[in-house]
Amino acid sequence: MISTKLTELLGIDHPVVCAPMGSVSGGSLTAAVTRAGGLGLVGVSYGDAAFIDEHVSQAAETGGVWGVGCVMFTFDDRPGLWDKVLGYAPPVIALSFGDAAQVHKYVASATDAGSHVVVQVHDPQQAAVAVQAGASVLVAQGAEAGGHHKNQATLPLIPVVLDITEGRVPVVAAGGFADGRGLAAALALGADGVMMGTRFAATEESLATAGFKSRLVSARTADTVNTRAFDVVRGIPWDDVYQARSVSNDFTRTWTGRDVELAGQRAIVEPEWIAAVARDDTSQRAMFAGEVLDLIQNVRPAAQVVHDTVDEAERVLTRLARSLDHPTT
Amino acid sequence: MISTKLTELLGIDHPVVCAPMGSVSGGSLTAAVTRAGGLGLVGVSYGDAAFIDEHVSQAAETGGVWGVGCVMFTFDDRPGLWDKVLGYAPPVIALSFGDAAQVHKYVASATDAGSHVVVQVHDPQQAAVAVQAGASVLVAQGAEAGGHHKNQATLPLIPVVLDITEGRVPVVAAGGFADGRGLAAALALGADGVMMGTRFAATEESLATAGFKSRLVSARTADTVNTRAFDVVRGIPWDDVYQARSVSNDFTRTWTGRDVELAGQRAIVEPEWIAAVARDDTSQRAMFAGEVLDLIQNVRPAAQVVHDTVDEAERVLTRLARSLDHPTT
Repeated sequence: MISTKLTELLGIDHPVVCAPMGSVSGGSLTAAVTRAGGLGLVGVSYGDAAFIDEHVSQAAETGGVWGVGCVMFTFDDRPGLWDKVLGYAPPVIALSFGDAAQVHKYVASATDAGSHVVVQVHDPQQAAVAVQAGASVLVAQGAEAGGHHKNQATLPLIPVVLDITEGRVPVVAAGGFADGRGLAAALALGADGVMMGTRFAATEESLATAGFKSRLVSARTADTVNTRAFDVVRGIPWDDVYQARSVSNDFTRTWTGRDVELAGQRAIVEPEWIAAVARDDTSQRAMFAGEVLDLIQNVRPAAQVVHDTVDEAERVLTRLARSLDHPTT
Repeated sequence: MISTKLTELLGIDHPVVCAPMGSVSGGSLTAAVTRAGGLGLVGVSYGDAAFIDEHVSQAAETGGVWGVGCVMFTFDDRPGLWDKVLGYAPPVIALSFGDAAQVHKYVASATDAGSHVVVQVHDPQQAAVAVQAGASVLVAQGAEAGGHHKNQATLPLIPVVLDITEGRVPVVAAGGFADGRGLAAALALGADGVMMGTRFAATEESLATAGFKSRLVSARTADTVNTRAFDVVRGIPWDDVYQARSVSNDFTRTWTGRDVELAGQRAIVEPEWIAAVARDDTSQRAMFAGEVLDLIQNVRPAAQVVHDTVDEAERVLTRLARSLDHPTT
């Protein structure tokens, strides 16, 4: 067992968090991670009321420590959905991708609802804002991540965020982690746990489609690309400091870097793209994945991912301690 | 003391390597790191015969384990300089930035000269080539590095390179490391040590100019930019898969992304730029630095960097071992 400030605060067994990936982290994956002793988070940001009811209910049935993950700006225009989420009294609410005003607003609302509030940050300034807003946990996410991220890498970001938070809140490292070596490294940097996305997308319980899961196993890190194309074709107003890392395909090769042109052609391109996604066409669909693809060789049960990650990290840390000729006492 | 396959192979005290930075890692810095028990490497790539004689002599006078760092393609047209380097019988020769044919050629030549041969790699394919060519140590360098690098980040790259090398040669992690937390994290990932550049550039012994050192302390990670502008203005034929991370300034803001235009105006721009560099004009000069700038607050003696890094890593690993409730036995 690896005990950290994160496991103590939340009352979970293992410092392993499953990222709340939109269209991937549903109730089944969340429940599996939570039941395995980690923290599962339902990705509710792009879901409608029916999605939230179905998947959040499934997570809540575990009776364990589960949560929801919310991209803040996607709830601004849908207050009914935010209230619906709060209605389930999630033990944990994870917030991401908001400006300082949004961070303050949603942290306050989620805290009032009695949840532990996790705020994802991507640079030192955002870390300071999140602490000031009253976050109970920070996720520091680097550019190795799949999906949306800012351009600062995880490895040097974690120590800087720890220097800012000064131990006041647990810090979870995200972006570039897929196994127990990564968890051990995150703990060595001083973090209190890891959040993994891509590794959990490639599990039996994830909502990723068959085509997407197949590419998670077969594609390599060098096949990923940072792109805004999937946001532009859907007309989702992401701040352009955030790009999304996806497995490259015909769609990214055609449209990456041509945001204005794509926006101008949405009336034609979007319906075709939606139809392609509906038939799980991997030459067109978004397949968000991180720089860890080189480390992912298979689709496994989510509980096995949690247990293998923790077991490997324990072995690594025990071995390292023994390699010290004269341990500091 | 932290003992690894690297320290055992080279007979050094600490698994800490100073990057062979051009115009920064001279004889004084190399000697200081080597005398402190790490591995110092003179950056000889852009130097002439006089530079090599002065700085390599200074390193050799330590009588310890020191080396030289050579960007392979810069020696192809200067065989006299390569032979001059070999003439000093460096205990370690570090090779970087060559294609497969160059890696084979220079590894063979350096091995014949009796040196330990370190090869820097930036992706899984390059790692396989380096092992096949007979490298005795690999440096796996990620995109967080200052100066030249490929676009794959360190954190997920290290485990992949370790899976390829399968323990046949020590692997040194580079890019994103500046303190003992980083060294502990590298060891947790399975690496046998770290190479640090920016942290050693900000030492008393480095050849970095006063203006450059001042910016290493005052600039932040968010102030860095990946650019080809300094290579283009100097007419150095870098493969464009490699960009160089520098502290941004007027020169990078003017020219980054305008390679063709800058190449066309070299006759005018280069002399002005060389004159600006000669007067240490930080609005114009290259100031290669990594994403670790947020972690660098001061200029210190190089020996102190080595000792603080190792001491902190030992404390981290000892603390982590104790945090395991039930260590694996």
